[in-house]
Amino acid sequence: MAKKRAKKGRITLTADEMGLQQREISISEFFTKNRHLLGFDNPRRALLTTVKEAVDNSLDACEEAGVLPDIWVRIRQTNGEDRFRVEVTDNGPGIVKSQIPRIFGKLLYGSKFHRLKMSRGQQGIGISAAGMYGHLTTGKPVAITSRTGPVQDAHYYQVIINTKENEPRILKEDIVEWDMERGTRVEIELEGTFQRGNWSVDEYLEQTATANPHVTIHFEAPDGKKQVFKRATEVLPEEPKEIKPHPYGIELGMLIRMLQETKCHKLQSFLHNDFCRVSSRAAKEICEKAGIYVNARPKRIAQQEADRLLKAVHKIKLRKPPMDCISPIGQELIEKGMRKQFEADLYISVTRAPAVYRGIPFMIEAGLAHGGKMKERSAAKVMRFANRVPLLYNTGACAITHAISKVNWRQYGVEQSNGSPPSGPLLILVHVASPWVPFTSESKEAIAPYPEIEKEIMLAVQECARDLRRFLNRRRRRAEEQRKREYIQKYIPHIGEALQEILGFSDRERKKIDKNLTTILEKSRTK
Amino acid sequence: MAKKRAKKGRITLTADEMGLQQREISISEFFTKNRHLLGFDNPRRALLTTVKEAVDNSLDACEEAGVLPDIWVRIRQTNGEDRFRVEVTDNGPGIVKSQIPRIFGKLLYGSKFHRLKMSRGQQGIGISAAGMYGHLTTGKPVAITSRTGPVQDAHYYQVIINTKENEPRILKEDIVEWDMERGTRVEIELEGTFQRGNWSVDEYLEQTATANPHVTIHFEAPDGKKQVFKRATEVLPEEPKEIKPHPYGIELGMLIRMLQETKCHKLQSFLHNDFCRVSSRAAKEICEKAGIYVNARPKRIAQQEADRLLKAVHKIKLRKPPMDCISPIGQELIEKGMRKQFEADLYISVTRAPAVYRGIPFMIEAGLAHGGKMKERSAAKVMRFANRVPLLYNTGACAITHAISKVNWRQYGVEQSNGSPPSGPLLILVHVASPWVPFTSESKEAIAPYPEIEKEIMLAVQECARDLRRFLNRRRRRAEEQRKREYIQKYIPHIGEALQEILGFSDRERKKIDKNLTTILEKSRTK
Repeated sequence: MAKKRAKKGRITLTADEMGLQQREISISEFFTKNRHLLGFDNPRRALLTTVKEAVDNSLDACEEAGVLPDIWVRIRQTNGEDRFRVEVTDNGPGIVKSQIPRIFGKLLYGSKFHRLKMSRGQQGIGISAAGMYGHLTTGKPVAITSRTGPVQDAHYYQVIINTKENEPRILKEDIVEWDMERGTRVEIELEGTFQRGNWSVDEYLEQTATANPHVTIHFEAPDGKKQVFKRATEVLPEEPKEIKPHPYGIELGMLIRMLQETKCHKLQSFLHNDFCRVSSRAAKEICEKAGIYVNARPKRIAQQEADRLLKAVHKIKLRKPPMDCISPIGQELIEKGMRKQFEADLYISVTRAPAVYRGIPFMIEAGLAHGGKMKERSAAKVMRFANRVPLLYNTGACAITHAISKVNWRQYGVEQSNGSPPSGPLLILVHVASPWVPFTSESKEAIAPYPEIEKEIMLAVQECARDLRRFLNRRRRRAEEQRKREYIQKYIPHIGEALQEILGFSDRERKKIDKNLTTILEKSRTK
Repeated sequence: MAKKRAKKGRITLTADEMGLQQREISISEFFTKNRHLLGFDNPRRALLTTVKEAVDNSLDACEEAGVLPDIWVRIRQTNGEDRFRVEVTDNGPGIVKSQIPRIFGKLLYGSKFHRLKMSRGQQGIGISAAGMYGHLTTGKPVAITSRTGPVQDAHYYQVIINTKENEPRILKEDIVEWDMERGTRVEIELEGTFQRGNWSVDEYLEQTATANPHVTIHFEAPDGKKQVFKRATEVLPEEPKEIKPHPYGIELGMLIRMLQETKCHKLQSFLHNDFCRVSSRAAKEICEKAGIYVNARPKRIAQQEADRLLKAVHKIKLRKPPMDCISPIGQELIEKGMRKQFEADLYISVTRAPAVYRGIPFMIEAGLAHGGKMKERSAAKVMRFANRVPLLYNTGACAITHAISKVNWRQYGVEQSNGSPPSGPLLILVHVASPWVPFTSESKEAIAPYPEIEKEIMLAVQECARDLRRFLNRRRRRAEEQRKREYIQKYIPHIGEALQEILGFSDRERKKIDKNLTTILEKSRTK
């Protein structure tokens, strides 16, 4: 161990002593200490994050397997006021036995990181982190029950993470009776706080139902209250497809690595096969522009050649990446979702054409609801979604909030103080869908403000806002009309009376005059 | 590979097929894809982050070795407009040969994660991430030269990270001639943007000099301009000491792990030796309160017993953790630092007594400067520091900004619009020092808003603000006095003249009257 020496009263170390202190840090140790990065910085948020990670995983699994999702979320208070057992069950495809321990007991393990395809999960951290937090605060393992089909066994596991190694440790392993034919149940016990209202499990489930109208969620709260969010459609969303990376979004280091790892033996076929939107002809053109032989072996491309290759790529015109890796909610269903939850006078929704950032496609959808039972004099309600998952925390850091604040709402007839989101009886919904959403932290609560993404969000919201302005103008005109009509109706009898007095009409004639006057004024007004 | 099937036009997967897609994700792959988490989301910030990580490491190493730090930062433009070579050299203790590759070529590797002692680095991510980013954007490796003493060899390495394995790959390894007797140089080539002004390398170095008055930094910018920030003191700050965890901050999972890993054979000695502030007697009391035998073997403590142990800990009164793990800048040096950089009329500084969050000690220091050449009509300048490192980005998400905004500045005679930082000719400096600063992301640019920390920051700032109020009041009174004095001096001759006219004094008598009048009025005014 490092020897300690006093030198003018200081304990100082030499390079050798410092060398002895160097150690490897496991990813689980890192996240245990930094658990606020994962959304476990306070008990209330911890409970929400746990439910969220489990439900997101269930929905992803069901959709990939082509199953209409039914999710049961049950939260029970256990031993003491601040301990809860979260149980999330789905009717999904189940998990094969060999994968169960690592999916729930190892951070950075999953199927979604290495592919370009829209899904709720991305990193392979979430559910294992929830289990880790549960174990940290209550000492209880994660319990998983899973079955892949009616003739298969239902497997039961109790798992914790060995944080030093970031590997699962299996405490119990069994075959059990289970009344589900197929599906997965995960149970996590943790320290938490259950509250309703903003940033709550309720709000998350409600918004999940809005953005996922094909899902039914059964919720049982710790106070025994039961709620069902029933699906609004029986049709599953289009399953997104996996795509290859687009050359425009590739950086030098990535290109070098792809060259090393490719299975292709020739540069031209590497460019054509390992990227999207590179035809054989385009690949040839790139090689020529870079001054490299089309049959060169990818593994032998030197760094400077790779550099030239990358420059050549940007000189070639390539089509945008394919967009079937994204599955939007769709205009109609966004409106349906809003209608189900909010009573308003007007619903507008927009699905933009896909755009690209860093070579990765993304798509913005937006919805607006106005009036109805929403409050006149308060900030607009903003609902943020990324790949159909509601985002509840870190509002201020999110590209969606930034973009909404940058829109000049007064231009659309809505009140706004400078640089803030608008106010009024308004609901604004924004959905960012992409095979790779850049979140500002691992807790996935805010989208990093990339300029391309912000701009697209603004365009989507402005498109909705234009419809809103039309609606508000029409309503204002109609109100004005009404006011004038009443005005006219109020004074015409008096004019008629006055005329009668002056000119000495009969009462019958007077009624005719009244009618004529009304017609004339009405005509001149609508001109 | 997963077989694809069409089922009503959908491609769906079974549990088995999904299982085949599950893969491990290396921490380097994770951060390559999520590099905005590390502070590499745009070229300008990437350059700053790279300099910052290298300088922070150099300062930590020098201080641990008891060396007054001299740092040379040199940025040169290389091939093309947006490529820079960052070179940071220090006169520190050097790095032993065997550690060089892993310190610069492996994420989550370092000496600072597993101990409780204040330092700039925490996670063992920073400098390796900078090297990874450099390699990703330019294909160039990190180059390191290091020497641990005048009779030792200077070692030269070129290293890149193998992102799949998160292990260093050595490209070159050599013994070289070097004119430094001792020290380390790191060179990283990267894509970046060099700009002066806010959020720039200049600003970072300037603020570093403010918070580290014992450091001399030599800076050579890409435009050839040289700058030297000279040290204001020859005295190194007190070297912080390593402490053990405090029982109040321990969670169940952590306790269970410590019980498993301890070298002690008895529960009582485990409690006494592995924690701070637990006397042998207190340890015995804890065991008794938990109903566990003092000689029980720690490794055999069951989960429920551990639970009882933790509850018992919180029933015992223990002293706060020791505070020598923190090394504050000190009131005097904070003032000196502010004086060096800003011309003001008033300087105030405060070092608070240490406080505790989650069992971890922390200390707040604050400084205020007012007036002078600072602008009357603009937002106050806020300088944020964590463990002597300036924080430049993510202002809005930081506990320091939150706390400053929550202070009611109008009460101290400073303008403020609701919920914002104050405005006026004002500089506010806040330093948060702790062996574990909870940052909101791995890029370490904002401190997570833990309530305990926010409260302490508010108290420190308010303490300064009270002095400011006294100063402003005094200045206001003095200005008023001056106004009155001028008023009196203006009118007394006229009164004298009038009296002379009425009563027929001689000129000599009139002068006497003037003098008497002045004396009387002066007296009555100062009563």
